[in-house]
Amino acid sequence: MIQNLRGQPHVNNLVHTATGVYRIARDSVKLDPWGTTDIADYSRLFKEFGIEPIDELVNRLPEKHRYFRRKIIFGHRDFQRIVEAIEKKEPYAVMSGLKPSNVYHFGNKMTADEIVFLQKLGGEAFVCIADLEAYADNGIPLHESEKIAIDNVADMLALGLDPKRAYIYRQSREQRVMNLAFIFSRGVTKATLEAIYGERPIGLYMSALVQAGDILLPQLEDFDGPKPVVVPVGADQDPHIRLTRDLARKFSKDYGFIPPSATYHKIIRSLTGSKKMSKREPWGMLTTNDTPDEAAAKFMDAFTGGRETAKLQKELGGEPEKCVVYEYYVYHLVEDDDKLREIYSKCISGEMLCGECKAMGVEYLTKFLEDHQRKKRALWDKAIEIVTSSPRR
Amino acid sequence: MIQNLRGQPHVNNLVHTATGVYRIARDSVKLDPWGTTDIADYSRLFKEFGIEPIDELVNRLPEKHRYFRRKIIFGHRDFQRIVEAIEKKEPYAVMSGLKPSNVYHFGNKMTADEIVFLQKLGGEAFVCIADLEAYADNGIPLHESEKIAIDNVADMLALGLDPKRAYIYRQSREQRVMNLAFIFSRGVTKATLEAIYGERPIGLYMSALVQAGDILLPQLEDFDGPKPVVVPVGADQDPHIRLTRDLARKFSKDYGFIPPSATYHKIIRSLTGSKKMSKREPWGMLTTNDTPDEAAAKFMDAFTGGRETAKLQKELGGEPEKCVVYEYYVYHLVEDDDKLREIYSKCISGEMLCGECKAMGVEYLTKFLEDHQRKKRALWDKAIEIVTSSPRR
Repeated sequence: MIQNLRGQPHVNNLVHTATGVYRIARDSVKLDPWGTTDIADYSRLFKEFGIEPIDELVNRLPEKHRYFRRKIIFGHRDFQRIVEAIEKKEPYAVMSGLKPSNVYHFGNKMTADEIVFLQKLGGEAFVCIADLEAYADNGIPLHESEKIAIDNVADMLALGLDPKRAYIYRQSREQRVMNLAFIFSRGVTKATLEAIYGERPIGLYMSALVQAGDILLPQLEDFDGPKPVVVPVGADQDPHIRLTRDLARKFSKDYGFIPPSATYHKIIRSLTGSKKMSKREPWGMLTTNDTPDEAAAKFMDAFTGGRETAKLQKELGGEPEKCVVYEYYVYHLVEDDDKLREIYSKCISGEMLCGECKAMGVEYLTKFLEDHQRKKRALWDKAIEIVTSSPRR
Repeated sequence: MIQNLRGQPHVNNLVHTATGVYRIARDSVKLDPWGTTDIADYSRLFKEFGIEPIDELVNRLPEKHRYFRRKIIFGHRDFQRIVEAIEKKEPYAVMSGLKPSNVYHFGNKMTADEIVFLQKLGGEAFVCIADLEAYADNGIPLHESEKIAIDNVADMLALGLDPKRAYIYRQSREQRVMNLAFIFSRGVTKATLEAIYGERPIGLYMSALVQAGDILLPQLEDFDGPKPVVVPVGADQDPHIRLTRDLARKFSKDYGFIPPSATYHKIIRSLTGSKKMSKREPWGMLTTNDTPDEAAAKFMDAFTGGRETAKLQKELGGEPEKCVVYEYYVYHLVEDDDKLREIYSKCISGEMLCGECKAMGVEYLTKFLEDHQRKKRALWDKAIEIVTSSPRR
């Protein structure tokens, strides 16, 4: 038994180091929104980029979503503005973008879950459907991405997004964002862009400026002016946050912008154990449109922290830190912390082997997918209405 | 008498070399849409940039505006597409932009005159009111530039623009243009932009891409798809034409774009004799809002081709090639070629001195301004309607 060596898993203060999740980055951490970012050690983000640990602020939240409880959301910039707005019941917003190029997967779900949570605590939600990005990056024409967007929006609604306190818009129809990007382009130097992103094609700089427009849209007079806005991102998106905060300061005289806040979450791995889900590995990606059977088949094939033989595993216990199935429990499938502790204990003690554990996961997964897909069907017409409606004035 | 040495002025094929109009450019010609372009010798534009002389094509026009008759429009790219469309009565468009940062002056009037002329020959007109540029360049907020735009549009209507066959839009409200700019930004390399414009701030590159969007807007399906489009410009704007033609080719597969055509006109000088009108020299700029008295005062002070003394001028004759007053006759005030010949003859023969000549000019000018301002008042409500209306779908 090596349980004592490891100590009890502290779920309420879970150190989810995810050994094996990320390749070791050789030199300093490079955050690249358009590439692959390998993060070996999240604490370096704090030192090198000024992202701050979120621990203390989490304690001030009136409720704690499992992402906050389990340190899946590990860092922030200026999240205290949001906490204060929640405490004082003042206006704030939570903002995110979604590229309508694919069906919703469990990585997308993380962002939606956080938006829904922060909306429930009193914020207004803003969601940009980045259909121009989907065209420019993936060659998906707007009439095609509209269909995908309807599907994606139905997912967000099914996950609990309240459309009455959300502004969901298509990039190709929200001129205010484009106008901001245009104006910002005059306030940014090439040196700044290169310092943040490295040397990039002009089109990616343009995308970055449009994203800055998206993030600052909630602070325009049309949306009742300046307010704290938080953007839930993976650390790889931090360059956009830094650029936008820079632009917010630069244009605060004209617009009164408050530099946007951000929270940083870990990225769930592919079922195969690869560090990030990818369309090139469809068998590693659970989507919200998978039938329970499809999902179960993929899940039963997932990479685990099991030993080479059942005998060995009974002796040594499993390794949940390496296990994607356990990651799904932590991130998505098990809300109850006691239940999670129990799974962890049974794994590391060798009491529960991977087959049994996965079968249990399939049950959770099946229940989630059936519920979710039922809700989605019921919300489909609402999703069509949202995606096809005109921009809000 | 030196009249014979010079020969008769050939107004129908007027070689308007404008000696003294342009400073001598030392090296090769540099065309800079955001700076000052000195063109000593227009023929070098043909050699160095591939702008072609327009002479032969002019003969194929069913009517010849004085700008074409008098070689004020001296060059073109692909204007034969427009001539062919006119001949075959096929669709074509004429497109231009206008920055609403100031009252209309006689330089702006040249573009409007050409648009009106080409519209009358069968084309549809597109006019972009570049209010975002006015904000970015001149700090004019959108609600201010709206007022200026109404004034400018009233000018264009008074000059004969037919609003029934014109799409006049504000940049800040025409999302299709912004979407094109976004898409184009992915199809252009920094090397291309630097080759065309030199190394520039990112904001100017963005403006260039937006202008490419403006120029290609008339070819979108919403406006009945690909067609020849001509843009009347001064030679300094040629970089935008080259970029747009490049992008049109690059995106022809997706959009079917026909590379846009352009005509190139000479730039009327300041009344002071400076090479270009400028807000920094208001006394050198006739505007369409000047009262006849204001205009007369400026005109009577204009730089001429007169000699040092009346006696000398009677002996040697005047020098119309140097004379801004004569330039106004050629460009704006005298439609009848015989009358223009008469003025020229009387000048170089010393029969008519500058005082008399200017007084005659003031008469033309007063009549023009009175007529124009009366028309403007009558068309004011229409201008408001156009500027404040929603984009056309």
